[in-house]
Amino acid sequence: MLLDALELVGIAAFAASGAVAAVRARLDVFGVIVLALTTALGGGIIRDVLLGVHPPAALVSWPYLAVAGVTGLVVFWFHPTVAKLRRAVLLLDAIGLGLFVTAGTTTALGLGAPPYAACLVGMTTGIGGGALRDVLLREIPLVLRREIYAVAALCGAVVVAFGDYLGLPAVPVTLVGSVVIVGLRLLALWRRWNAPVARKLDG
Amino acid sequence: MLLDALELVGIAAFAASGAVAAVRARLDVFGVIVLALTTALGGGIIRDVLLGVHPPAALVSWPYLAVAGVTGLVVFWFHPTVAKLRRAVLLLDAIGLGLFVTAGTTTALGLGAPPYAACLVGMTTGIGGGALRDVLLREIPLVLRREIYAVAALCGAVVVAFGDYLGLPAVPVTLVGSVVIVGLRLLALWRRWNAPVARKLDG
Amino acid sequence: MLLDALELVGIAAFAASGAVAAVRARLDVFGVIVLALTTALGGGIIRDVLLGVHPPAALVSWPYLAVAGVTGLVVFWFHPTVAKLRRAVLLLDAIGLGLFVTAGTTTALGLGAPPYAACLVGMTTGIGGGALRDVLLREIPLVLRREIYAVAALCGAVVVAFGDYLGLPAVPVTLVGSVVIVGLRLLALWRRWNAPVARKLDG
Repeated sequence: MLLDALELVGIAAFAASGAVAAVRARLDVFGVIVLALTTALGGGIIRDVLLGVHPPAALVSWPYLAVAGVTGLVVFWFHPTVAKLRRAVLLLDAIGLGLFVTAGTTTALGLGAPPYAACLVGMTTGIGGGALRDVLLREIPLVLRREIYAVAALCGAVVVAFGDYLGLPAVPVTLVGSVVIVGLRLLALWRRWNAPVARKLDG
Repeated sequence: MLLDALELVGIAAFAASGAVAAVRARLDVFGVIVLALTTALGGGIIRDVLLGVHPPAALVSWPYLAVAGVTGLVVFWFHPTVAKLRRAVLLLDAIGLGLFVTAGTTTALGLGAPPYAACLVGMTTGIGGGALRDVLLREIPLVLRREIYAVAALCGAVVVAFGDYLGLPAVPVTLVGSVVIVGLRLLALWRRWNAPVARKLDG
Repeated sequence: MLLDALELVGIAAFAASGAVAAVRARLDVFGVIVLALTTALGGGIIRDVLLGVHPPAALVSWPYLAVAGVTGLVVFWFHPTVAKLRRAVLLLDAIGLGLFVTAGTTTALGLGAPPYAACLVGMTTGIGGGALRDVLLREIPLVLRREIYAVAALCGAVVVAFGDYLGLPAVPVTLVGSVVIVGLRLLALWRRWNAPVARKLDG
């Protein structure tokens, strides 16, 4: 119940990040909605395609579609206001990341994937939508370049897989995994942590 | 029979649009053929991956492959002529869009997808190939930026889903849906309709 | 046994090419590892998604993941040295291409795909990872622009499909197909063969 409500919050946050990026790229209203849908639902669709869930849950669940689409429209109309809410959007995005990654990992484990595969699938669920957003807008995916994003996702996925390995109950494990992700992500934003970059090539 | 022939026309039109874009991007002959195949067959492959049809029909059907590949070769050799046929290519592309979207929606409904999911899958079938083409050539997908393209696709998909809901026979419904798409698309091109773009951001 | 070992060599070579490209694009250490994994495993994942193998073998096989990830890390630390090994990387990449294409074609045939579909799937297995790498780094895929790469892959795939059609034993056919690919690829590099490009458009 609470997790379901939080998941819709995460979808709205992901949709908002896609829509804001689309508005900045001067897409029309339809492009903005498509980007909102793609960013919010893309990770889950990739997960279901990898795991063989047909058709993908994100396409069959109308609340997901409605929340993502309406968020896209709202951003289109009120985007100067949304642009000012940058901190709120980052917070919601961290919550969405936490829930998507842990839900993806749990789904993969439930379908019999080995733990390391489940972690990869869970991470992909969380970061796939944003990567699609950036590829469609012709950017190198942010997740590959900035701050501790995918690492936070991976840590949470490992927590869920380890909890499952120990036979702990699923709901608290999912919550702890989500909190780890949200916490690491906010810490990284707050302290401006970045992963190291290789020394520059001379040639 | 007529629908099958029209579908091959649509594939040739999509293949031509991919090949023309590839020639403009200075790809070699093989790249031109790959772009022709990807643009013509990409939407159907995405549809089959989402719906769990393995292997995708587009890879198993040699007439599709042959038509798309030969179209790519023809464009490579005669592209200055093809470039002059811009209006004919746009007309064929509209017909291809109409047939791909309605066929995709019908396929999804037949596999038991709910109506809104079938509409999304149908739309994706129609616009997916062109989106792949633009991503491979490092463009922001045209469908997100220009004219009434995806909206026309969505309207036709809704017609098909609604007709199916009312229990109307499939062939006339598919035809009406295709006519709606082709009509909207040509109207949009003729009247230079575009969807609205958000006001410019100051910051 | 020998084929398995060679396959790991191919994965390491593909991972190295992804990691070198990521270092050049100034990604952080995590982005370098993700690019290494994507380049090395992407082709196989696309193959399994097309053929309906869930979850994809590349995600379930820990040696693949370990070799690709460690290669990414090694390149991150020693990339000036790796950059000097360009010839060795190209040789390993050709071996990887040969093994991936023939393995992909064999897998598709084993799952009942018709020969031309199996050739396309095999070719996609070999060139898909590199195409993903280039799309993520916002490049037009190299395979579409340069040298005899996809053509070599296609020739090897046809050898495997034809051998299968004749009922020849799988292991020698796979070896011959791989040798054809590696040979064509090295010849193309050595003689600087390129496929023809269309005459320039005036307009």
